[in-house]
Amino acid sequence: MSDRLPVLRIGDILLVSVQSDLEDQTVLYLQEDLAEHIVAKPTHGVVIDISALEIVDSFVGRMLATVASISRVLDARTVVVGMRPAVAITLVELGLSLGGVSTALDLEKGMAKLRRSASSAMR
Amino acid sequence: MSDRLPVLRIGDILLVSVQSDLEDQTVLYLQEDLAEHIVAKPTHGVVIDISALEIVDSFVGRMLATVASISRVLDARTVVVGMRPAVAITLVELGLSLGGVSTALDLEKGMAKLRRSASSAMR
Repeated sequence: MSDRLPVLRIGDILLVSVQSDLEDQTVLYLQEDLAEHIVAKPTHGVVIDISALEIVDSFVGRMLATVASISRVLDARTVVVGMRPAVAITLVELGLSLGGVSTALDLEKGMAKLRRSASSAMR
Repeated sequence: MSDRLPVLRIGDILLVSVQSDLEDQTVLYLQEDLAEHIVAKPTHGVVIDISALEIVDSFVGRMLATVASISRVLDARTVVVGMRPAVAITLVELGLSLGGVSTALDLEKGMAKLRRSASSAMR
């Protein structure tokens, strides 16, 4: 198996579906790949789907925050979608916050959120 | 980890990103989940991204063909996207054909293919 997560492009939005426990190397590759995709073609935002994750620990939380920061300095927004209710409860109980990471319930709502922020930015 | 692959919806298109070697149970869940998603909301097509797969053996080939057949009887088309060149070569060398499965180079081209078939079907 590849230890790179596929980065899919839909117009000016990139999509990453996180499905397995992440190794350090996979996270490093993801950061590189996303940065390369963002600079290669006009990219408004990144959607990260975590609906397959049953556990989001501090490692994953930090990964999400770092990816969002990298995207931000490259002028792209990040939305995390598909968080399970149990994951949200655990995050709060553990006192982990996804500082600066925007969320939406599912992929469609996440893409709509990115489009809204695109049109308001152009005004 | 969950042994279900997340099924993402973008409008009337469903997206599945296959990232890991598939277990029998995962394939069964995927068939169930896709069928339920297709009947739950108007669905024109299913895009299966296999860009993370370095090997496509006869098990995966059969899975893709079965998913396409199930979608077809539920009036949805299936497009497999992201096949690596090496995977295509191996498939042909092994004599495996993806009978009845439509392909496209990447997610955007796959979605465009589905949209074209939608507009021609409506004429």
